[in-house]
Amino acid sequence: MNMVADLALPPLATIGAPLSTVSTPALLLDLDAFEANVSAMATMASKAGVALRPHAKAHKSSAISQYQIGAGAVGICCQKLTEAYPFVRAGIDNIHISNEFVGADKVEMAIHLARHVALSICVDHVAQVHAVGQAATAAGVRIGVFPEVDIGQGRCGVESEDALAALVDAIAQYDGLKFRGLQAYHGGIQHVAGWHARRDAAAQSADKAAAYVRFLEARGVRCPVVTGAGTGTAEFDAFSGVFTELQPGSYIFLDGHYGSSEWIGTHKPRHGLFIAATIMSSAKPGKLVCDVGLKGVAVDSGLPRVHGTADLHCSAVNDEHAMLKTSVTQDRLGERLLLIPGHCDPTCNLYDQFVCFRGGIVEDIWAIDARGLSQ
Amino acid sequence: MNMVADLALPPLATIGAPLSTVSTPALLLDLDAFEANVSAMATMASKAGVALRPHAKAHKSSAISQYQIGAGAVGICCQKLTEAYPFVRAGIDNIHISNEFVGADKVEMAIHLARHVALSICVDHVAQVHAVGQAATAAGVRIGVFPEVDIGQGRCGVESEDALAALVDAIAQYDGLKFRGLQAYHGGIQHVAGWHARRDAAAQSADKAAAYVRFLEARGVRCPVVTGAGTGTAEFDAFSGVFTELQPGSYIFLDGHYGSSEWIGTHKPRHGLFIAATIMSSAKPGKLVCDVGLKGVAVDSGLPRVHGTADLHCSAVNDEHAMLKTSVTQDRLGERLLLIPGHCDPTCNLYDQFVCFRGGIVEDIWAIDARGLSQ
Repeated sequence: MNMVADLALPPLATIGAPLSTVSTPALLLDLDAFEANVSAMATMASKAGVALRPHAKAHKSSAISQYQIGAGAVGICCQKLTEAYPFVRAGIDNIHISNEFVGADKVEMAIHLARHVALSICVDHVAQVHAVGQAATAAGVRIGVFPEVDIGQGRCGVESEDALAALVDAIAQYDGLKFRGLQAYHGGIQHVAGWHARRDAAAQSADKAAAYVRFLEARGVRCPVVTGAGTGTAEFDAFSGVFTELQPGSYIFLDGHYGSSEWIGTHKPRHGLFIAATIMSSAKPGKLVCDVGLKGVAVDSGLPRVHGTADLHCSAVNDEHAMLKTSVTQDRLGERLLLIPGHCDPTCNLYDQFVCFRGGIVEDIWAIDARGLSQ
Repeated sequence: MNMVADLALPPLATIGAPLSTVSTPALLLDLDAFEANVSAMATMASKAGVALRPHAKAHKSSAISQYQIGAGAVGICCQKLTEAYPFVRAGIDNIHISNEFVGADKVEMAIHLARHVALSICVDHVAQVHAVGQAATAAGVRIGVFPEVDIGQGRCGVESEDALAALVDAIAQYDGLKFRGLQAYHGGIQHVAGWHARRDAAAQSADKAAAYVRFLEARGVRCPVVTGAGTGTAEFDAFSGVFTELQPGSYIFLDGHYGSSEWIGTHKPRHGLFIAATIMSSAKPGKLVCDVGLKGVAVDSGLPRVHGTADLHCSAVNDEHAMLKTSVTQDRLGERLLLIPGHCDPTCNLYDQFVCFRGGIVEDIWAIDARGLSQ
């Protein structure tokens, strides 16, 4: 009964060991698929002549962002200010906060970050501009600012030329701010399943963004950057002539929702994200229970799919259990499974590590160092 | 651009400061409600003459378990082996793993834990008994074992007397194991909304547990402990004459789902769990966006409710945003809100800290030290 204060957890995985030795549940990253996906997106952006600024909210791991920057990305997006800190610590020096924020604590973080890296932010209300503008000017830092325009999502972003003009005018009042261009993102159309329908939706949204660019140009304000696009529309937005920068996140490993979309263009990302699971109860005929629950897989975009086997289907997910139905009558207690999560972003945010594998062997372990940083 | 490797996050909250200064999103624990709920359950268990072994899977915080034990709990339940480690480190020496597990890594953890604390586990397959029995006997430790009987949930647990007898016989083969009684839990009936219907469902499940106890007694096997019950059925199970030990978890703070149940008995838990949020975009008439998304609130049991205001309703939750509808036309940018999450367990598992408050002031910060430990 001694030294319980030092009781150490066993390692989740051992580098060099077979995947079958990883303790379950664990979040697995298929490095072959990941590297192919990173390379394909970088190549496409390069061909299109647009910048690639991948979103870190999908994976929350500075190791992944570093790999993307090594493959040609100009910097990263974060969705929250605290989320940016681990990336700054890892040496990433160009960060766009692709989201609005309010509050003295948040403004202080933005100033803090801007002392260390090239920082840009989004605004959709003049009060946000004034709060950051006063603080940045007083602190002697300069923060890039992107007014967000709503191109169809109906969430954040202004939806009138007057409101956009008011933001641009407000930004111009402050030495500590610099107008950089427009943030224009429509999350909803990323998940339109049909390729042609997705292409048409992307074109409509790009047209809305273009109209705002023309409006500002007519007022003598040039937009050096129009930043947006996600995994679903990147292949269209890259060649739209409107966007100058792409922000996709999930393309590095997909998820069940994106995986079920139609991909018939040149852009064909591969599944690279899995959850290792173990069947831990087989007490009922035709039912199996595995050891991954709501604390190991997000279900907001559907239940997880069992990978590589046609006879197991997930029917429900509880806190620590996933219920599986099967037509196979043999006892499968202890069998290991790979699950594909329905939605990658909130699933990655449940784990502290990616167990990276290649050819069935654990090759590396990458920290999900921005996990839980949501302020 | 120096010393970025040391860049420190600002504190989430400051002890002694008003709640309005806490950085959002943050998970808040109302200490008055928490203490009243802990006391009421302990009093009820004591009156009924049953043991209280609260479940730690709901909160994953050793500070909370220590408080519960100080108020009379005999020990705690964990649902996973890794989950138990922070509680052991905090000095809690009596832990029941109320769930099955499979695999050499898991068996090794059970042996490791049993060297330091009084450990009991659940089984529903003889292979689980043999794996732990051989290892425990070889290691010279003794682990308490509870066969799980299915009393209606249809998840884990045996559903026949023969299967139960096989488990009891297998346990008896090992010096390293000790039969302790039965695990009998029905998660589904915890959330029956109507009080009378919940009472009747609890009685039916208790009857099933009692039948298994009588079956074993007729074979000469006494069940010293029948452990089960949750927040929804504890007030019935306590006085059932069947259960000797209660395992409720969520009773300490409830959630939206439990809060919408009918509570007309003597047991009336109070809401004590909130998420502090800020309205960070108000660019659309009638719509507001706050800064809590899927990474800050679990939505498997429904969208969060806005506390203390009748004119704001959550209509959707995205990764980092909750959409709110309102009939109030004034600009509410920057307004702070309290949300009640639909489901407490997976929501707590998203955060690293409870910001504990009383009377509008931050009184303490408790680590959620088992967050993410799901193996």
